[in-house]
Amino acid sequence: MSDNLKPVPAVVIKRLPRYYRYLGELIKQGVPRISSAALSQKMGVTASQIRQDFNYFGGFGQQGYGYNVEHLYTAIGEILGLNNGYSMIIIGAGNMGRALATHGTFEKRGFRLVGIFDNNPELVGKEINGITICHTDELETFLDSEKPKIGILTVPKAAAQSLADILVKHGVAGILNFSYSELKTPAGVSVENVHLSDSLMTLSYKIKEN
Amino acid sequence: MSDNLKPVPAVVIKRLPRYYRYLGELIKQGVPRISSAALSQKMGVTASQIRQDFNYFGGFGQQGYGYNVEHLYTAIGEILGLNNGYSMIIIGAGNMGRALATHGTFEKRGFRLVGIFDNNPELVGKEINGITICHTDELETFLDSEKPKIGILTVPKAAAQSLADILVKHGVAGILNFSYSELKTPAGVSVENVHLSDSLMTLSYKIKEN
Repeated sequence: MSDNLKPVPAVVIKRLPRYYRYLGELIKQGVPRISSAALSQKMGVTASQIRQDFNYFGGFGQQGYGYNVEHLYTAIGEILGLNNGYSMIIIGAGNMGRALATHGTFEKRGFRLVGIFDNNPELVGKEINGITICHTDELETFLDSEKPKIGILTVPKAAAQSLADILVKHGVAGILNFSYSELKTPAGVSVENVHLSDSLMTLSYKIKEN
Repeated sequence: MSDNLKPVPAVVIKRLPRYYRYLGELIKQGVPRISSAALSQKMGVTASQIRQDFNYFGGFGQQGYGYNVEHLYTAIGEILGLNNGYSMIIIGAGNMGRALATHGTFEKRGFRLVGIFDNNPELVGKEINGITICHTDELETFLDSEKPKIGILTVPKAAAQSLADILVKHGVAGILNFSYSELKTPAGVSVENVHLSDSLMTLSYKIKEN
């Protein structure tokens, strides 16, 4: 879809999940149409920014008449690839790994958790959310047979790069990285780093300025 | 500092923690100065964007000569309020609450965890990271005596608003909200919502486009 259009800036991409979430809420509330002005109020960006954002994807619906909420929701979901049913594994069954494994929203967004791995013998064999934790020794075999698309790394910093290398070697397309480590991966593999302390720092700024 | 300057857009505020983290890495590596060009490469934004961002805070250092890394790190830390030693409590000692309680980076950024609360009798009395989990019945007394600045909500959606109301009533200045619920708070209380599935959706987009 984006082949004929301008490259999409990272800040616009970052806003897509927020649009998607908010449109999902509107659908729940039974709202059929929304103006860019009303959407902008909720999103905390200007209406012109919203129109600019949507123009990267060819625009959706007419100005003045507003956007069809369901249509927009579906279209943004497709842009985000949520209809692809990407399968994923979690490596690291500590608190964060378990929190993510039981995080219902991931499934709601169309992602399928197919495996959980850890090297701690006390955790191996235990079940989380219907999935038995496997030893990381079994990771490579699993990757070759199940071919998950996404690897979520919730391991200590020191272990992250070598596990990322294994994921890359066995064909994972993307890594969601909670390890606070800068991963080196080839161009064909996407990485999204999650830094929970960034949110806390942003909150700190808001408190200071409020 | 920002009193005499333009209001800072949300996207610029969001970038500050990333600048801060990256500059911290440079200090560790012993790098004394960095050009906006080199900083921009690492950050994935243009050098002119970086100069624009910094101009909201009066600019830092001279162009051409580059930025003094330590000075910039300290200045951005102050802008983020990290030198204020904000105290915080976590409400919800499930997997996510425990993950955050043991998240060393929060302390490294100057935040002090002073309490953990849950209403599950099986968790109350247990210790995480040297802090004993208290029952939420004790929350109001604790808030009045300890006056924590930040409340972190890692509770189910249905419980979030009533707990936020208690935090607000007893003087908390900011809420870090992991509950996937839209909180209503008065103007004097800042809220930062964390949506872990946003990162996964962003990764999904990158995989699709890669």
